[in-house]
Order: sequence, then structure tokens, then C-alpha cells
Amino acid sequence: MIKLRFMSGLAPVQLRRLAAVAAEGSFEAAARLLHVTPSAVSQRIKALEETVGQVLVRRHRPCDVTEAGRPLLRLAGQLALLEREALAEARGSLGVDPGRTRVAVVVNADSLATWFPPALARLPAEPGFSFDLRQDDQDHSAELLRAGTVMAAVTAQREPVQGCRARPLGAMRYRALAAPPMVDRWFADGLTRAALAAAPVVVFDRKDRLQHRFLRTVTGRALDPPVHYVPSVPAFSAAIRLGLGWGLVPEQIAEDDVAGGSCVDIAPGRVVDVPLYWQHWHLDSPVLVALTAAVRAVAAETLRPVTGQDC
Amino acid sequence: MIKLRFMSGLAPVQLRRLAAVAAEGSFEAAARLLHVTPSAVSQRIKALEETVGQVLVRRHRPCDVTEAGRPLLRLAGQLALLEREALAEARGSLGVDPGRTRVAVVVNADSLATWFPPALARLPAEPGFSFDLRQDDQDHSAELLRAGTVMAAVTAQREPVQGCRARPLGAMRYRALAAPPMVDRWFADGLTRAALAAAPVVVFDRKDRLQHRFLRTVTGRALDPPVHYVPSVPAFSAAIRLGLGWGLVPEQIAEDDVAGGSCVDIAPGRVVDVPLYWQHWHLDSPVLVALTAAVRAVAAETLRPVTGQDC
Repeated sequence: MIKLRFMSGLAPVQLRRLAAVAAEGSFEAAARLLHVTPSAVSQRIKALEETVGQVLVRRHRPCDVTEAGRPLLRLAGQLALLEREALAEARGSLGVDPGRTRVAVVVNADSLATWFPPALARLPAEPGFSFDLRQDDQDHSAELLRAGTVMAAVTAQREPVQGCRARPLGAMRYRALAAPPMVDRWFADGLTRAALAAAPVVVFDRKDRLQHRFLRTVTGRALDPPVHYVPSVPAFSAAIRLGLGWGLVPEQIAEDDVAGGSCVDIAPGRVVDVPLYWQHWHLDSPVLVALTAAVRAVAAETLRPVTGQDC
Repeated sequence: MIKLRFMSGLAPVQLRRLAAVAAEGSFEAAARLLHVTPSAVSQRIKALEETVGQVLVRRHRPCDVTEAGRPLLRLAGQLALLEREALAEARGSLGVDPGRTRVAVVVNADSLATWFPPALARLPAEPGFSFDLRQDDQDHSAELLRAGTVMAAVTAQREPVQGCRARPLGAMRYRALAAPPMVDRWFADGLTRAALAAAPVVVFDRKDRLQHRFLRTVTGRALDPPVHYVPSVPAFSAAIRLGLGWGLVPEQIAEDDVAGGSCVDIAPGRVVDVPLYWQHWHLDSPVLVALTAAVRAVAAETLRPVTGQDC
């Protein structure tokens, strides 16, 4: 391990302890990961807090990093990656690196459930990677990027997070589906405003506004129909197949449901495209370059070109 | 709306405001839901805090309820359900109830992605239900039950949460799968200790200990192989099919993967059964009775009898 010490008095070992506590959620788990005692973790973090003059970790269960701790956490992650890559290069080959490079990425739920995993399988086999994926909505994604907990994100947020670069990936296309009995009961006369105001709708969670934006686009009005919250991609499409409500389903999943006859497209020709972005640390790292290339290649094959029209 | 006031000085309207803030995460969103102003929400909560003599809501983004607020939150949920059911009964029919009964349940990720949604479709069509599902691990489930945020849970936790009843549902059966190229590379000589110590494994998240328990059962030792964290049920099984690692897959999903040839059962005959429990408020409510019957019926058809053997 390279022993660095910055002019500022920050020691990389302290930053590593901070990163481990943030990733594992407790001093005990961080200590297990690092093969040291919990009190050794605690002392290093205390020393770091004294250097900075701020509380960096809230001692909750799970522990989390304060606002003041976030830039240091991102620095820790960036240092760890650069150090590992420099070492591997110095040894003359990526292959001899004994450890695995941790690739931490946060991905929105629909991408994670459909097109994203194949991108990971396209990374070169060496150096070995350890994928640390998170599933989340766009608010939390920005937070994780800012804190350096993840090095990249697939997100609907276009504005680059501080210290990051954002590139367009293409649009996820959604189709409005319902089961045939639901269509018979509610939409025999089509998508009338009265039907859409009363028919139950399946929504992923409280942050998912896609269905409500679709309602406003179709009817010109903000409607407030009965809602079922189903925060799991397979359960979401199952709820629609079972006739609990209509909802917007990624085309990758919608295709099979419509072809199999379990669902009907209730608004044929009227799709909803959600542009997605690849946000990543602005860092010259071979791992990030390889990951970015793999993600962009798979996205180009599976997502839609962004047309500017957006629900 | 029935106007109740308890001897204790607690007003149901205050409890309803508390429940709305807890469910929506902010005073503004709670106000929108209740069609009142944010300051009206704030005043009621303040009055409730004065009555109780404790801070009940932490004013974060999102807001959360303090330890002192949790029993009141559970009371709020129970009162809302009982009141709605009493009203509907008083009116002579469940059907005339103009609103929808909110059914809030937390379900572990694998159940939510497989057998749970069909249980919801078995509830009687009237009164209309509004399902408010959450996906979570067992720790968080107990917390949500205790706080009254949910009325029931599908969880691996056997001990009843305070104020709740726990009934066994049967066991979710897992099989150890890997893609054929992964088997060729790592398990040509079977599940040796050396192979299992080195072969990468797919794990749902940091709370998922299933794969590590399996390793200990098979090898008699705690092993620490390279881990990929993939916290999405469809992405988890995709990661295994893509050859990123081996992992334990619910039999409902494993069956198709093995039949389709994308995966191999690396430990045939050696299954892992995880007993699941239905925990629900100890409350004499028709909705809870109907939901419990539907969940138990579907579980009886899809889960395995618990044999006592458990990984």
C-alpha cells in the first residue's frame, strides 16, 4: 500500500476508514471489512474530525456521513481508485492486481431490471471487478454521487452533479398497459377524462410522477385517481397483469405482456419517453472509461434516441 | 367523519395529521393530501406534541417520526381503519363507502417479486382497496410495523412485533445457480472449498447473509469470496445468467432459468429454505381478516411446508 500524506494533514488511511464506515453503516462492520478493531476505526475517524474541525459521521444505526464529511468521502473513493490503478500499472499488468476493483454505481429501478446488467458483462474479464450496485430514484442518486459513495449513476437527472460529468444515454420508452378485464370495465369508451379520473392506477412509489404526468398530457388536467403503490419492478407489472390498475411499463417488459395477451396497450401510439443520463466522476480512470464505454454501447442498442418530446 | 375525543386529550384529527406527515414525508405533501394548509398541519402536530410533552416529528427532509411518536402513529392507523369499517357497516354495506381502504403492507423483495401480488388480486372487489406496498428487509419491516406505517408484513422474522400477531406462511425455497461458463471455470471439480472461496458470488445487499450461510453449511467454514451487490430481483437473476457470479435464487425464478439452459443448479438436492411469517396488527378488522386469508391461501399454494431444517 502506498503511504501518502497530504500537505493538509489528511491521511489516506483516515479517509479509507471513513469510506468503510459509510459503505458498511457501522464502525463494527467497517472494522470487520478492514481487519482492524472497531476502536482503531473510531480513533482514525476522530483524528480526521479533529483535523477538519467538523463532525464527519453521525453515530446512528446505520451511521451516515454529515454534509461536511461528503467531500472527504468522495475524495476517499477517488483516491482508492487512482491508487489501485497506479499500482496495477506500475506492476506492468492489470492482471496481477491481487484485489478486485470496486465498481459502485446507482441505477434507476427500471434500468436495473432491464438493460443495465448486460453492460457489466461487457467489461473486460481482467482486472476482476466487484460490482456494488444500488437501486434508487434520481434524488438519492445525486446524493450518492456527491458523497462519492458511487462513482457513476444512471439517472433521469440531466444537470451534472458537482465533480461529475453527465452524458445522454437515450430514452427509456414506456407504454400504458392494462389487463383486458380492466379495459372492459373502465376504458370501453376509450381514455375519457371521466374514466381516467376514476380508474385505479399503479404507481412505483411516492416519487414516481410518470403516471400523473401522462394523465395531464392526455386529459389536459391534473387528475387524482385511486393509486396502488408497488415499489418492485416485477410486482409492478404483475399488479397490472392481475388487473389491479393501469400503469406505464418499460417497453422491454411491455412487449412480452402484450404479445402474451395478459395486457393491452390502452394508448397505442402514445408513448412516454424518459431521457436517461450517465453521470460519472470527472476522473481519468481506466475503469471508469471502460465502464462508460460498456454502458453507452448497451444503452445505444436498447434505449430510444431522444427526440426532444418528453412527457 | 365521526368526531371523537379521547379522555386523554388526544384528538383523532391530530393523529391523522401525524399519520399523513409520516406517510408523505413532509408537511407540504401531507397538507396537499389532506386539502389543508401546511400551517394547519404544523399547528395540529405542535398541539399533539404539547399534549404528549415530547417531540413527535423530526423536521428533516423527509420528516420522520421519533421513538415517542411511533405508538401514536400506530394508534392513528388503527383508528383510521376501525373508523372507516364502522362507518361502512353502519351504512349497511361495504359497497357504499365512497373512499378506498388503504392497505399498507411491507413485503420482502423476493416474495414481492414472485408469489405476493396474486394474493392482492384475491381480495373481494368491494370495498375498493388502495394498496400501499413497501419492499424491505426484515429489520426495516419490524420498524414499519411498530410505527404503524404498515398494518402487516411478510418477513423472515418469527418473533411478533409489539402489538402484532405472527403466523407461519411456509418457506421460500432457494436453489444455488450459476451460468454454464461460470460452472466450467470454477466448479469443474464440484463445490470444493477452494472453488467456493474464490468464485464470485452475487448478493442482494449488505443485509443479505443467505449466500454466506450457504457457504458455511456446505464447507463448514466462514468464507469471504468476492461479492457483487445487486439489489433488484430481476437484476440479481440476470447477473447470475450473465455469469458474473453464482447465487441463491427463489425456486419460482430458478425453475425457468434452469429449464431454459441459462443456468445450472450447482448444488442439486441441496436447497435453502427460508421460513416466512405474516405479521399483522392484533386488531379485529374485516380488511385484515380478508387480507390474511388471501395471503395465507396463496402462500399455502406456492411456499414449501417448513420442515425445521433451515440454512
